[in-house]
Amino acid sequence: MTTNTVGAVSTQYFTFAEDEPFCLESGESLSPVTLAYETYGALNADRSNAILICHALSGSAHAAGYLDGDPTKLGWWEDCIGPGKAFDTDRFFVICSNVIGSCYGSTGPASIDPGTGKPYGLNFPVVTVGDMVRAQVKLIDHLGIDQLLCVAGGSMGGMQVLEWAAHHPQRVHSAIPIATTAHHSPMLIAFSEVGRQAIYADPAWNHGAYYDQPQKPDAGLAVARMVGHITYLSEESMQVKFGRRLQGLEKYGYEFDTEFEVESYLKYNGHKFTRRFDANSYLYVTKAMDYFDLTQPTGSLAAAFADSTHVKFLVISFTSDWLYPSYHSKQLVSALTAAGVDVTYLDVKSSWGHDAFLLEVDTMTNLLGSFLDRLVREEHVTAPAGYIPHARVTPATTTALARTQLADNLA
Amino acid sequence: MTTNTVGAVSTQYFTFAEDEPFCLESGESLSPVTLAYETYGALNADRSNAILICHALSGSAHAAGYLDGDPTKLGWWEDCIGPGKAFDTDRFFVICSNVIGSCYGSTGPASIDPGTGKPYGLNFPVVTVGDMVRAQVKLIDHLGIDQLLCVAGGSMGGMQVLEWAAHHPQRVHSAIPIATTAHHSPMLIAFSEVGRQAIYADPAWNHGAYYDQPQKPDAGLAVARMVGHITYLSEESMQVKFGRRLQGLEKYGYEFDTEFEVESYLKYNGHKFTRRFDANSYLYVTKAMDYFDLTQPTGSLAAAFADSTHVKFLVISFTSDWLYPSYHSKQLVSALTAAGVDVTYLDVKSSWGHDAFLLEVDTMTNLLGSFLDRLVREEHVTAPAGYIPHARVTPATTTALARTQLADNLA
Repeated sequence: MTTNTVGAVSTQYFTFAEDEPFCLESGESLSPVTLAYETYGALNADRSNAILICHALSGSAHAAGYLDGDPTKLGWWEDCIGPGKAFDTDRFFVICSNVIGSCYGSTGPASIDPGTGKPYGLNFPVVTVGDMVRAQVKLIDHLGIDQLLCVAGGSMGGMQVLEWAAHHPQRVHSAIPIATTAHHSPMLIAFSEVGRQAIYADPAWNHGAYYDQPQKPDAGLAVARMVGHITYLSEESMQVKFGRRLQGLEKYGYEFDTEFEVESYLKYNGHKFTRRFDANSYLYVTKAMDYFDLTQPTGSLAAAFADSTHVKFLVISFTSDWLYPSYHSKQLVSALTAAGVDVTYLDVKSSWGHDAFLLEVDTMTNLLGSFLDRLVREEHVTAPAGYIPHARVTPATTTALARTQLADNLA
Repeated sequence: MTTNTVGAVSTQYFTFAEDEPFCLESGESLSPVTLAYETYGALNADRSNAILICHALSGSAHAAGYLDGDPTKLGWWEDCIGPGKAFDTDRFFVICSNVIGSCYGSTGPASIDPGTGKPYGLNFPVVTVGDMVRAQVKLIDHLGIDQLLCVAGGSMGGMQVLEWAAHHPQRVHSAIPIATTAHHSPMLIAFSEVGRQAIYADPAWNHGAYYDQPQKPDAGLAVARMVGHITYLSEESMQVKFGRRLQGLEKYGYEFDTEFEVESYLKYNGHKFTRRFDANSYLYVTKAMDYFDLTQPTGSLAAAFADSTHVKFLVISFTSDWLYPSYHSKQLVSALTAAGVDVTYLDVKSSWGHDAFLLEVDTMTNLLGSFLDRLVREEHVTAPAGYIPHARVTPATTTALARTQLADNLA
């Protein structure tokens, strides 16, 4: 277990006012809308120390601490959020909310459709990253926060960060998009679509109407997750983790049972995923990622940040991330620079592939910590009452390889 | 249609003598064994001008010309095999046979098990690349050829080439392994396994016993093929072929229908594949690829070629091939060099990913042609009777982009 944790936390819920239907980019509207969220640390007197953390595809609002008093239910970014950590909860008020369309307490396809009294299934409207973020804006309003000191996140979390900076620039001082992109390349869309096709191919999916059925589309969802898992790793990290080692065998069995360690890993994690994630949410959230495209409608990525020149950026990519390769971040940095935005960029040397954003904790702690220190100085952010500064900590007891075991649950 | 074709061809069949059961690496034996094969050109007087072409995962014996008088049924390597082409059928006697375990006429899981009178299904024994090649050795014996001038092939075809050179060196003068590897990395095994899991997940697969059922595991096989298809392309080639273009739409439909061109492409090709390939064969052939490991049993790749010092190698990889990245070929070249083998290596600059071995025809024609010219000189290979030399040709009317449409069917 890591040290310097925020300790026991509980998820909170915010339901939008019923007389204000939430309008979506598609033109449809959604009501009621509930967001699950967690907060760590305390707001300072002028409410200027709030940081919003945005989660990736299968993440939740539970980013730090342990849930419901259960020390095994650690937050997905526990390594980076806590007292003295990168996002120092002694100094900052840290918020994380589950995106709409997901299945961790925010309104999604498994929620009850008030029109029918049954789960939405495919009647749930398609949501976008823009919709996810506009829901977060309402949460920030609800929490009485005028301007976030920072919005940060990796992967799909990074897309939300970019959406905040581009379309709600007056609400953010700084943005930290990590291992992400301003739009999915065709290869990314292709991997998403294969995952969706694996779910569609499962007869138990039943066009999304499986919530009252004895069988769920677990087989299809597991295959989708296995495809995803490959893309989160790198050739090098797979070589280190698995090589061509056999799972408890001396030699080939010449049969179709699981034999190689990497097969066992994929199968185990694919099936484990079905116990915590909803297949329809997988469809909706991946679709939102595919739709995300900050170059639209003008065709210029720089134009997206025309009103964001006051937002300070820290852009981070990882050299072995082939899902969101560094060139995506470099294009983003070029566009930000062209727009006249203050941007710091680092392409972190790492062998862990896309998962590096969860694993390169020491580097991330230094990078994020220094960037936030600078913000505190420049924006004159005061600490909450009772703050006692102490040295920055990283969870040094956790090795990068051990962390990969954690990351298996989190990306 | 390409010029300089061998024209109408027909597939031939060779069934091994029944009194000699074919022993497999697994320890099991198989009988009867039939190989489907095609030949193009003529043997010369001393039977020294024979070239064996080995096909990839979903290929067949039909490598050149048009089958059964149907000009639309072009061979999978039509661009490289024919009069005046890289494998010049005026000079060489070119052979291609379907691997055992496949479904194009050679014995495989869809063949009738003589023990039950029904298709084998999963009762078919697991075969290896070594088994595939030993079956080819018997075919070459049957054709009365003592030594092949050359064995050539890409992807899994390249593995067979390496197997020939390492384990049957006395039967080959030269070897051309293209876009291949001496063993699958864990990432390659992972992609194979996800494809297999997609098939297992399809209830219609029925543990391989679907041949007499109304429904075949087409949904699972299509997903497996979609995963494969992504790995055959490159980010750059997908950008050129699809970008983020929508399929016949002006704007997002906010629904789960196929919208992006790349989705449509994957879905179309995935389902088209189910009309030409057998799901069980997909399992067996991918398993053979995963098992292939020339570093075994000694742990040294160089040791595998200890008896192959007389075999001349031309090794080819492609810069954008991330399925069999260039470093696999470079490791192979290092091992061959360490073993004292005569090896020429080229890492061809290409944006077409793994499919480049089917698409970079001009470069391949020059490379292969020059290498074979050298062999002809050094081995004093005579031309068949009636040979009239003419200029080397490439199918110049076919652009690389147009060829990608062909490649969709072939890899």
